[in-house]
Amino acid sequence: MRQTFVTMAFFAVVTGVGGGTVRDLLIGAPVFWVHNAWTAPVCLGVALMVWFSPSRWWQGESTRVIEWADAAGLGAYAVLGTAKALALGVAPVPAAMMGVITGCVGGVIRDVIAGRPSIIMRPELYVTPAALTSAICAGGHMAGIDKMIVWPVAALAGFGLRGAAIQWQLALPAYGWRSRGK
Amino acid sequence: MRQTFVTMAFFAVVTGVGGGTVRDLLIGAPVFWVHNAWTAPVCLGVALMVWFSPSRWWQGESTRVIEWADAAGLGAYAVLGTAKALALGVAPVPAAMMGVITGCVGGVIRDVIAGRPSIIMRPELYVTPAALTSAICAGGHMAGIDKMIVWPVAALAGFGLRGAAIQWQLALPAYGWRSRGK
Amino acid sequence: MRQTFVTMAFFAVVTGVGGGTVRDLLIGAPVFWVHNAWTAPVCLGVALMVWFSPSRWWQGESTRVIEWADAAGLGAYAVLGTAKALALGVAPVPAAMMGVITGCVGGVIRDVIAGRPSIIMRPELYVTPAALTSAICAGGHMAGIDKMIVWPVAALAGFGLRGAAIQWQLALPAYGWRSRGK
Repeated sequence: MRQTFVTMAFFAVVTGVGGGTVRDLLIGAPVFWVHNAWTAPVCLGVALMVWFSPSRWWQGESTRVIEWADAAGLGAYAVLGTAKALALGVAPVPAAMMGVITGCVGGVIRDVIAGRPSIIMRPELYVTPAALTSAICAGGHMAGIDKMIVWPVAALAGFGLRGAAIQWQLALPAYGWRSRGK
Repeated sequence: MRQTFVTMAFFAVVTGVGGGTVRDLLIGAPVFWVHNAWTAPVCLGVALMVWFSPSRWWQGESTRVIEWADAAGLGAYAVLGTAKALALGVAPVPAAMMGVITGCVGGVIRDVIAGRPSIIMRPELYVTPAALTSAICAGGHMAGIDKMIVWPVAALAGFGLRGAAIQWQLALPAYGWRSRGK
Repeated sequence: MRQTFVTMAFFAVVTGVGGGTVRDLLIGAPVFWVHNAWTAPVCLGVALMVWFSPSRWWQGESTRVIEWADAAGLGAYAVLGTAKALALGVAPVPAAMMGVITGCVGGVIRDVIAGRPSIIMRPELYVTPAALTSAICAGGHMAGIDKMIVWPVAALAGFGLRGAAIQWQLALPAYGWRSRGK
């Protein structure tokens, strides 16, 4: 895809803040980056730095580094999204769904606008690690376990599962697989 | 399309609550399923039941049953969406648009994320039955007619028109049809 | 694309009010057209007028007129979006982003639902003129310059840049262009 500085900045912002934006709209909280003077300039500054970087930095071996950084972000976003919803009094199941939304929806919006197959449709696990992290977070909250224990465990579980999916192309079975071969 | 349990659950939730979510955001009401502990678990539970059902249940003749169930849901959603907007003091024309949004937007979001041609673009009537139901609802409200009469009439009119569209592939004329043959 | 009256009305409304709707949701303002009895009927009325107009009005030379009208709208929407956000106390950088969203997002939603490559991805400038207008608006606000001067200058700058892009197919350099020919 041909990227100019403006499309790069647009996609940087959408991917970075899209999931959290949808979560804040759904739970009725003020949208975090609109009411904070610094989030948007930081996103634009990062896009500007990438724009002036040599393109070989983002090719070959580095795509793997980016995928692992994305895996770490997925775990962190899912924890933060679930925790914010729980803190605002949302029930555990919808709160865990807010965690999944925070982790995945930014990438979904980016893919939809770019006209690419969405990350939701990829065969290897992506939504599942976010769901694992969010479920641990919501479950730990219900069980009354200390956040200092629940949050790192939840983030690491999601990061580990997503990392395993990257490393070994882990995928869930597809619907109807039981009937194959009959 | 290859479906795993996670993508099936994702699409079940998006299609089921997507239209009502957009409506609630637009009219400024708390998003119904976020502040209700049961809606999200029920959607996930239905997805789980479908996941463990034999795939032949959803093929051949049954696709017709699903289409008719969808037609009934379209009428009911359009009534509920219009009525909720009117109850919150929205004017009749935007309230009727909320009915259309509640009925159709869940399917639109599903199609856009799945990368399929959206239901909006289908030749046979889909948005029109939702618009008929919503217009009857808003018109009956303006005329001061009792809800107990308006709501069933409106829902049945939309269900009937959508059913007729399924049965006989009813379609609206396309723009420019008057100039064909000239 | 085959258009019926209903799809034409749907796309008229989405393109016309989509950007401002997303802006109002993000800044936490009541969505302008939901709480105003006239905006939605006007959009539908315009769609109805277009529907009954001869299709040759919208072909050949007239597509150029439509593009220039769109350029004027882009400048005006970007000014109004930035100004509304600033008036609600949003910081200058996110406020300028609201101007870009107001100007561009209606067209993006239309393209995504229609399954076409989004305006964001076009090679010739589209987001950039909206960003120029919004940046002038936010900059003028920070410098304390009178709105009566800032707003027309900002709208004209965006309109002029978009017009130049239409006339001479202006485009930004793509990422990686510096390495071409090496």
